[in-house]
Amino acid sequence: MIKELTAFLSEEQVSVNPSIREQHSHDESYHTPVLPDVVVFAKSRSDVVKVMQVAVKHRVPVVPFAAGSSLEGHAIPIRGGISLDMMGMDKILEIRPDDFLVHVEPGVTREALNEALKKYGLFFPVDPGANASLGGMAATNASGTTTVRYGAMKENVRKLEVVLSSGEVIEVGSLAAKSSSGYHLTELFIGSEGTLGVITGLWLRVYGIPETMVAARATFPRLEDGVAATTAIMGTGIPVARMELVDPAAVRGVNFYKKTNYPEIPTVFFEFHGSRESLAQDIERVREMITEEGCTSFAIEHNEEERRRLWEARHVVAHAFLAQYPGKRQIVTDVCLPLSALPQAVENAHKLLEQLDLPGAIAGHVGDGNFHTILAIDPDNPDDMQKAEAFNEQIVLDAIHRGGTCTGEHGVGSGKLKYQRTEHGSSYRMMKSIKTMLDPFNILNPGKVIAD
Amino acid sequence: MIKELTAFLSEEQVSVNPSIREQHSHDESYHTPVLPDVVVFAKSRSDVVKVMQVAVKHRVPVVPFAAGSSLEGHAIPIRGGISLDMMGMDKILEIRPDDFLVHVEPGVTREALNEALKKYGLFFPVDPGANASLGGMAATNASGTTTVRYGAMKENVRKLEVVLSSGEVIEVGSLAAKSSSGYHLTELFIGSEGTLGVITGLWLRVYGIPETMVAARATFPRLEDGVAATTAIMGTGIPVARMELVDPAAVRGVNFYKKTNYPEIPTVFFEFHGSRESLAQDIERVREMITEEGCTSFAIEHNEEERRRLWEARHVVAHAFLAQYPGKRQIVTDVCLPLSALPQAVENAHKLLEQLDLPGAIAGHVGDGNFHTILAIDPDNPDDMQKAEAFNEQIVLDAIHRGGTCTGEHGVGSGKLKYQRTEHGSSYRMMKSIKTMLDPFNILNPGKVIAD
Repeated sequence: MIKELTAFLSEEQVSVNPSIREQHSHDESYHTPVLPDVVVFAKSRSDVVKVMQVAVKHRVPVVPFAAGSSLEGHAIPIRGGISLDMMGMDKILEIRPDDFLVHVEPGVTREALNEALKKYGLFFPVDPGANASLGGMAATNASGTTTVRYGAMKENVRKLEVVLSSGEVIEVGSLAAKSSSGYHLTELFIGSEGTLGVITGLWLRVYGIPETMVAARATFPRLEDGVAATTAIMGTGIPVARMELVDPAAVRGVNFYKKTNYPEIPTVFFEFHGSRESLAQDIERVREMITEEGCTSFAIEHNEEERRRLWEARHVVAHAFLAQYPGKRQIVTDVCLPLSALPQAVENAHKLLEQLDLPGAIAGHVGDGNFHTILAIDPDNPDDMQKAEAFNEQIVLDAIHRGGTCTGEHGVGSGKLKYQRTEHGSSYRMMKSIKTMLDPFNILNPGKVIAD
Repeated sequence: MIKELTAFLSEEQVSVNPSIREQHSHDESYHTPVLPDVVVFAKSRSDVVKVMQVAVKHRVPVVPFAAGSSLEGHAIPIRGGISLDMMGMDKILEIRPDDFLVHVEPGVTREALNEALKKYGLFFPVDPGANASLGGMAATNASGTTTVRYGAMKENVRKLEVVLSSGEVIEVGSLAAKSSSGYHLTELFIGSEGTLGVITGLWLRVYGIPETMVAARATFPRLEDGVAATTAIMGTGIPVARMELVDPAAVRGVNFYKKTNYPEIPTVFFEFHGSRESLAQDIERVREMITEEGCTSFAIEHNEEERRRLWEARHVVAHAFLAQYPGKRQIVTDVCLPLSALPQAVENAHKLLEQLDLPGAIAGHVGDGNFHTILAIDPDNPDDMQKAEAFNEQIVLDAIHRGGTCTGEHGVGSGKLKYQRTEHGSSYRMMKSIKTMLDPFNILNPGKVIAD
């Protein structure tokens, strides 16, 4: 197989070097690394097509790999085979400012795209924290702090180019803002984690950089008060751009790591986007509303530097928390619930965490009903692992019971596979049929999303 | 077969009465009516399941029918069989104000839903003009005047209950605002026009009724100036709630039908939603911007009654235009384009219309890149029909050539079937595979979306 790959790829595109294979054996999760048999560096769509043809011929798994920032083991080649590195496909092919659209290759990172967009006064809003690749973000339906205002990847991908396991290249979606023509296939590939096809091109929505951005911090006596305040704000329709809950342990991690001195109490970080006048009104309404919900302080970060520092702090919250426990790894829960169920779900997580004999912190994209519990574990200690997994399971089953989902944004990968049937019930069978239809030999990231 | 149907349905639920069959033989389009063999009035999900089992057994088509307001022949049973009337499933099952969600049966109309939501201070925004059923709106991915602000059905359906041709009932989607769990199946059924399953339940997003709503009318010397002005507004991110272009012929129709006296020149109708203060600023910015683009008058409709009258007028624009030509029927084009391509596409349509020897008017949801040309034809005159279809084809091919879609909101039905392969290219094959997978006997609305 490797000989066949090198027949059409240059020598440096095909590697069995142990350290290169090691780099492609893991992501940022706690899941056990597995070495691929070979790493292939794709430079073009036609490379991907040919790799697929060879892989099908030899019935060898193909696992797309990009920034490696996934959190549930998506990019780990658990059945070996080819790790298909997409980071060489990193061209921004077209920026169409008048259409608020860009056409990119999958290895472009979100920071690289935003850097290129800046001179047009545009930005791409989806922000999972990590400097992930846009192909990987589409493959997991990534979202993050700005989703409350701008939506997840699903709302911001207008069209995709995908290489199917048959080697066929298809384009799905339309550059038009809406369409009632044919079946909507784009959403099927978004969040499919490389199990239905390999994304080789993306057309994404971009937005004008807001005239003004203002950040604020609000503190609350109890975590539950913070959740109640944010759900009340969602009810008003005030267009907050970010609204993030952090618990005292998360703030402590940030202070430790970023040398900030934020009060170590339950806090909501806000960001507002808009014109100067409309923002002043929005912020005033938010202040009134959260004061009613028991907010004890509301600090507006007036200057750009303070605003950036606040969001840098929020972005690194998991890393920061972990930095206090050298040598430990993270297990992060990721449930998302209907808004009305969020307060009880967070309260439940908070109580379970207090009973748990592991360091943990809570942080959440509460405007979307999504929150995380970050646990620091010793991956070599089976007892830690077992406790963390049992905790995760309690959080997941509670969320599904309340009408929510086991993963709001991190994806299924290996970690959420066992909850797919419970969450999706009767539609899980249809998902399996789609997988079988598009990948009859089960070579596309086998063992992810759909159990094999 | 009819005997088997009456075994589990009450007598009045199964009808072969000629006038009832005639009522279910057509929609609001120019497409040739075809009588179903039998009309079944579904009262529950279990009725639908049993009808499906009988239909599969006898290999008889099942064509869902609701308000009958479709514009491309979707509900016409072109291969005979069962017209499955869903209007008896008209219960609003649950209103969850804290989640901004409602659970409805498919026969609930959008006006009935909005009536029920009013006392909660909520509304459902998708507004195709007609008082369509919500099941039918999901089945065609309906949109309309408010889509520029609130999205189409695709953005506002969170979860669906669907009866498959196997008789299996599945739920797709999640009540959570976002999810990265499993494949996104909801979007596959939205816009599938009853060809993949029958929708028996919907969970929809609803919104708080805006504090203030203001309407305005802006006039322009040329249609193209109006298009340019609206695309410029889209660039600023000002959150207009509606932005509708109408040409002089469309305004003339409205004046004739509604006894208004709007100036019969190219006009853009606006609606703004928000707080009183933010609206004042938005409107002022819009006024400045469109003045630069050559706007010759800008009239704000201050009171509620004038606002309502304006949108009533816009809603009936096709009926109003047609009312001037008694006995004629409408053929309406429905292309949607990337914003930058819209001015040339409208200009092209305008020129073609001037050369065409048929009465016609242009109206468009220009903020989305979607516009309609309404033609009044004599359906019994083959010459009219041929001219109108040739015109439609020119508009469609021009839109596809410019990166757009053959139908922005009306759907494929019978009228856009022949453009599916051209528009979707290589992904059309995947659409066919999905159809075959879910409906192996081709009994679900056969001959629509996918050619059989």
